[in-house]
Amino acid sequence: MSAVLKETKTSDRASRLEKAEQLVGTKGKFVPAQMASSLLEVILRPGDRVCLEGNNQKQADFLVNALLSVNPEIINNLHLLQSTICLQEHLDLFRKGIASHIDFAFSGPQAKELATMLLKDEISIGAIHTYLELFGRYFTDLTPKVSLVAAELADPDGNLYTGPHTEETPTIVEATAFKQGLVVVQVAKVCKALPRVDIPGDWVDFVIETGQPPLSIPLFTRDPSSITDKQILMGMMVIKGIYAHYGVQSLNHGIGSATAAIELLLPTYGYALGLKGKVCTHWILNPHPTIIPAIETGWVKSIHSFGSEPGMEEYVRARSDVFFTGHDGSLRSNRLISQVAGLYAVDAFTGATLQIDEFGNSSTTTRDRIAGFGGAPNLGSNPKGRRYTSPSFRKAGEEDPLSSKQIGGLPRGRKLVIQITPTRSEKRDISVFRKELDAVALWREDYFSQPPIMVYGDEITHIVTEVGIAHVHRCSCLDERKAAIRAIAGETELGAEEKFDETCELRRRGIVQFPSDIGIQEGTVDRSLLSARSFEDLVQWSGGYYKPPRLTKRKK
Amino acid sequence: MSAVLKETKTSDRASRLEKAEQLVGTKGKFVPAQMASSLLEVILRPGDRVCLEGNNQKQADFLVNALLSVNPEIINNLHLLQSTICLQEHLDLFRKGIASHIDFAFSGPQAKELATMLLKDEISIGAIHTYLELFGRYFTDLTPKVSLVAAELADPDGNLYTGPHTEETPTIVEATAFKQGLVVVQVAKVCKALPRVDIPGDWVDFVIETGQPPLSIPLFTRDPSSITDKQILMGMMVIKGIYAHYGVQSLNHGIGSATAAIELLLPTYGYALGLKGKVCTHWILNPHPTIIPAIETGWVKSIHSFGSEPGMEEYVRARSDVFFTGHDGSLRSNRLISQVAGLYAVDAFTGATLQIDEFGNSSTTTRDRIAGFGGAPNLGSNPKGRRYTSPSFRKAGEEDPLSSKQIGGLPRGRKLVIQITPTRSEKRDISVFRKELDAVALWREDYFSQPPIMVYGDEITHIVTEVGIAHVHRCSCLDERKAAIRAIAGETELGAEEKFDETCELRRRGIVQFPSDIGIQEGTVDRSLLSARSFEDLVQWSGGYYKPPRLTKRKK
Repeated sequence: MSAVLKETKTSDRASRLEKAEQLVGTKGKFVPAQMASSLLEVILRPGDRVCLEGNNQKQADFLVNALLSVNPEIINNLHLLQSTICLQEHLDLFRKGIASHIDFAFSGPQAKELATMLLKDEISIGAIHTYLELFGRYFTDLTPKVSLVAAELADPDGNLYTGPHTEETPTIVEATAFKQGLVVVQVAKVCKALPRVDIPGDWVDFVIETGQPPLSIPLFTRDPSSITDKQILMGMMVIKGIYAHYGVQSLNHGIGSATAAIELLLPTYGYALGLKGKVCTHWILNPHPTIIPAIETGWVKSIHSFGSEPGMEEYVRARSDVFFTGHDGSLRSNRLISQVAGLYAVDAFTGATLQIDEFGNSSTTTRDRIAGFGGAPNLGSNPKGRRYTSPSFRKAGEEDPLSSKQIGGLPRGRKLVIQITPTRSEKRDISVFRKELDAVALWREDYFSQPPIMVYGDEITHIVTEVGIAHVHRCSCLDERKAAIRAIAGETELGAEEKFDETCELRRRGIVQFPSDIGIQEGTVDRSLLSARSFEDLVQWSGGYYKPPRLTKRKK
Repeated sequence: MSAVLKETKTSDRASRLEKAEQLVGTKGKFVPAQMASSLLEVILRPGDRVCLEGNNQKQADFLVNALLSVNPEIINNLHLLQSTICLQEHLDLFRKGIASHIDFAFSGPQAKELATMLLKDEISIGAIHTYLELFGRYFTDLTPKVSLVAAELADPDGNLYTGPHTEETPTIVEATAFKQGLVVVQVAKVCKALPRVDIPGDWVDFVIETGQPPLSIPLFTRDPSSITDKQILMGMMVIKGIYAHYGVQSLNHGIGSATAAIELLLPTYGYALGLKGKVCTHWILNPHPTIIPAIETGWVKSIHSFGSEPGMEEYVRARSDVFFTGHDGSLRSNRLISQVAGLYAVDAFTGATLQIDEFGNSSTTTRDRIAGFGGAPNLGSNPKGRRYTSPSFRKAGEEDPLSSKQIGGLPRGRKLVIQITPTRSEKRDISVFRKELDAVALWREDYFSQPPIMVYGDEITHIVTEVGIAHVHRCSCLDERKAAIRAIAGETELGAEEKFDETCELRRRGIVQFPSDIGIQEGTVDRSLLSARSFEDLVQWSGGYYKPPRLTKRKK
């Protein structure tokens, strides 16, 4: 009965390792930097699935350049797996034919270029994932054959120290090492003893010492001095109208200046409302510099981070009561874990977007920018599998007339998913609210098999603009949701359709709230409410530990 | 402006370590087994949050006994965090007052006893979580102060080898070690060099050599000889009516004999249907012995596992093309990762339940058994945050008339969530289908803040009984869903309400399918369709690698 299966993965791995050994000339793991491209040429094969570490912050920048130098006649049509398309070089791999297909999650800095290449058919996209589904597929049907990752230090056994930028490196390495793949890591330095071990050496095949720490991008650094009055107003509405109303204890904030405003308003405006200790105590958050004043005034009990943020290293080390840190003192981040906690273990997600349609669907994929979503669809999702409750979860669930009806009138909780955005983009003065999302148009034009919507309208509980708050989860039908959205859409295509009587009725029922409805007079908005108004203020709050990075654009 | 915060966690940790050092007399990590209880008495404090490793399979059995021996006058009212309440000893901790409160996910073997204790107020339950939300909370608001975990081997630096039973040990240790907590591990043996490193030694504070590998429970071992004709019939319906219909490529199966039947039918019935290579290729699954024939006949490309299964160690080692294994050859399991992949990266989840109500809500929490849910609410959840598609995901989404309507008619995909159950429990002949779940009654009686429902009715796509398949996600309203459910509810309270005309109409529309509607004649159900009909058959299929464990009940 029993058949003999041929085991191929082990021998495939052995044959690649053998070629590498012939090249390097020893059996050791350590490969000189100048041989990096040659190594990749012997361990890669055309069409291989390759996980290239492009994270939100940390980049395997040396290895991407090594990969760019391989001979495309030998190595071509790679299928790249990558959390983030961050660098010009990531796209150059496609221009040279070394790679042809990509599955990814976020592409902020290269969003424009990616859109251009896609429209010109220069790149083939598998899908724009969220991190969790991409990581999940690494262990299901997209297991990498070779991974190219980055760490700070290695010891002679190949044990790795990632420092604060652990991010998804352990997840990538686990998927590859335990399915007979090959793991190549760039490190700044090989040293005798590590401050701590983040990844065991026997999971790693090749270590390349580059003399330079991996490039790290300050993606979550927001300058307090550039926060606008509109953002302050919206921040006040979120704190008073939502966080206080529900008693939001655990939460995640996305990237963006509006959420930075909320963080800076907690010690001042939030304190005046008597909220200290009652809301915003447990966070799933990168080390945002703008969270420093809230930490220093004792609001924050715990923060777990997806990744680190340049300049925050010493401050985090000084606040190990709040952050997750190793015995060496530095941050231990972990994107997989933070995404899981941000999905399942928090009361609220608050984030920004680029476009919202009349149903409340939102997306950051626009005709001229394919930014991907990062964690937003996941963090901004109401996890119906969640089974423990919290006061906020219960209250939001009780307010939702549709969800309970679907299960025979039984109660169930709901996570708050808050989209915060001005009605028109402040930088580019273009409308955020529109009849149809570009994402939908791109799908109609066949660029995607489903519209690349970031957060669906029925997943959102609140949309907050400078006009007011729409409590969309309280609407009893889709038409009511549409009316609530246009009531706060301001001077946009959608806002123009607002009906005065309808909005009055929604305000009367508390489904729409203008600032004055929750006791915020627009005239009272004042920059002095920000607990820090500049980087200098943040440095001072931090006791000198925070070192703001230079926010100049990186040249190639 | 800047305040000086007092950092307390580091000094708290230092003071506990100092007491331990005084006790043990050295600065080393290694504590003699006979001092285990004394160690716990000095590093624990009343009310501490303690993560005690009770996994699905692996148990920190030595450490739970050490904890049972502490003086309850000194150590009491601990808040236990535990994936699984598996052992009698886990509940004894509450009887002795050492622990008073628990947050957990699964309690299969102790379900009956737990229900009794809850009704007698002898235990206080925070919540019945799924694994992912419990793990998420370890990094949010339920960070453990002390963790008591289990591994197979340690080296002199405290590096740990978990062997195939990695399960959630790395996740627990990460949550504790990086928030200034203390990690205590029991190992069978300390040896000079490990087969591989699963957890770095500098994450571990104390190692106790016990001479015995941690207890491991064969939770996923199903005896093919006990599979019933009903289970074979239901298995055939799932393969032909669902897996073939949608082209299900990636999937997870729960515990239970009905899903074991599906696994055993693939090489025979599935092969005859021409499905080999087209369905069931990528799995998120523990190493179920009943998956062996499908592997040996080349159906299975990949399996990632939550945990291991006793007896499967050597077989897994011989099939590293399929399973995730280390360079030492043994399985690397990881519950956090498997749960993430099972939520976000698969087409289908198929699992069993104990009760289903008229709306399709299901639960394994009954009046006399509080079994918890394990991963089911998570794995059996339609992840609305998922953004990549597959043929199955798209097709299931297209069939769902309600979901698309909520977002303005745009397409979105859907995961298949299949509940497979006889209409009446075969062992106990009690009704599975009923007007009200015990879970709802227990909530009405105030034992829970929300009804402990396992999978909500609107999350399920299919219910399969011996009567037929109800495609509940295709129903256009709740009343139609109720009609589809009672059409397949057989001789139960709900089945008695079936209306003949209504069922005929649902069958005509394909929303309800009886076996004959999909070309399965009940007379053709035959045990010879099972590719293995006994443990001996499985051993033979495995080429002698599989060693069935003794399935006797464990005595204390």
